[in-house]
Amino acid sequence: MKYLLYYWPEIQGRGEFVRLALEEGGADYVDVARLSEEEGGGVPAMMRFMEDAGRPPFAPPFLVAGRQAIAQTANILLFLGPRLGLVPRDAAGKLWVHQLQLTLADLVVEAHDTHHPLGPTFYYEDQEREAKRRTRAFIAERIPKFLDYFERVIERNPGRGPWMVGSAVTYADLSMAQVIAGLRFAFPNATRKALARRPRLAKLHDAVFARPRIRRYADSGRRIPFNNDGLFRRYRELGG
Amino acid sequence: MKYLLYYWPEIQGRGEFVRLALEEGGADYVDVARLSEEEGGGVPAMMRFMEDAGRPPFAPPFLVAGRQAIAQTANILLFLGPRLGLVPRDAAGKLWVHQLQLTLADLVVEAHDTHHPLGPTFYYEDQEREAKRRTRAFIAERIPKFLDYFERVIERNPGRGPWMVGSAVTYADLSMAQVIAGLRFAFPNATRKALARRPRLAKLHDAVFARPRIRRYADSGRRIPFNNDGLFRRYRELGG
Repeated sequence: MKYLLYYWPEIQGRGEFVRLALEEGGADYVDVARLSEEEGGGVPAMMRFMEDAGRPPFAPPFLVAGRQAIAQTANILLFLGPRLGLVPRDAAGKLWVHQLQLTLADLVVEAHDTHHPLGPTFYYEDQEREAKRRTRAFIAERIPKFLDYFERVIERNPGRGPWMVGSAVTYADLSMAQVIAGLRFAFPNATRKALARRPRLAKLHDAVFARPRIRRYADSGRRIPFNNDGLFRRYRELGG
Repeated sequence: MKYLLYYWPEIQGRGEFVRLALEEGGADYVDVARLSEEEGGGVPAMMRFMEDAGRPPFAPPFLVAGRQAIAQTANILLFLGPRLGLVPRDAAGKLWVHQLQLTLADLVVEAHDTHHPLGPTFYYEDQEREAKRRTRAFIAERIPKFLDYFERVIERNPGRGPWMVGSAVTYADLSMAQVIAGLRFAFPNATRKALARRPRLAKLHDAVFARPRIRRYADSGRRIPFNNDGLFRRYRELGG
């Protein structure tokens, strides 16, 4: 099956969690909004699709698979998981992977809100003072709480290898590694210190980015670098 | 099957989305943390379970079904949906209901953040000024954007009746009605005006709370009233 991914073409953002799964699964896909408008791509094609769909997405990313259009990052991964061999076979294992993904989604919202505590309506520049306070609390309390949790998940996993669930990589592992990469970009010092005390997470991150297909993707130039329009942003004045 | 629900005993919060599904589905369940400690309930029992589980929840609510413990509100509903007859039979329909639930979860986070823009680390009293700014933007821009979206979903649903998906109530409809009830409690004037212009959502809300099992639940006294410890809070100084 050929997949069409629709997402903002200039950021990793939430789309990157889907891209990593598609890459690791060796899927045949087109990143539609990154094509030119002449090729039927670009942001206008994405907005048109959202406007016209019978079951409209609220926001990108969304994935088109045949006649189905699926939105919400975690929901797209729920759909792709079994198709790309990125979840356990049993129903309980699938739900557990999804649960971890939703907990990562909560962490991602909080990481985003460090630079947008007053919400998406105001520019960063209009909430910088509030962003400083929220960032301090995020680094002091929330990063440790979330990372302790995921470290414990790996520790309690009876499977072999560096993964969170069983003995094979899942989409939640790919997303976990991506979140760690994002935290490193946004808060390099704080994240280095946090990972030094959580060796299992550091190992999971390295194992994901050492996988042949993920490495080939990163080396291809197709992986958009982190930047200050995405979820994870590096503002020196916020600290970390 | 007998279900055990674990959630904070004094608020509706995220647990209420699960309670409404269990009630509408006529499920046999125990709300464990609302039992006394002598009966094996209370918050200590909940915390103990979270600490000891092999696949630990990050936070309440979580549901125990046989040997499985499932956390994350949307994930619990994903599990319960087919068991309680609250989703369509086809896989695409199930994913669509889940997608709506995840979009509602995004709205719920933003509704919560009106009173906690600087995050869960600070008390409301320490972020009241910021809460005012975020609430103004939430009412002016975010409530309309989300409610327009869900109104359109109902409008484009080819099924009969007031629902978002097909011709029968789903867990996403129950959650939609609960979100509307929460917005009404937190921002009564703004929500009244918003609903006057979105008649399909007003009708969906009324249809859910008129269902016999939901009405019986509300009338039983078991439904905890909204209060200012939950997700949706009424602070007059924030407006709305």
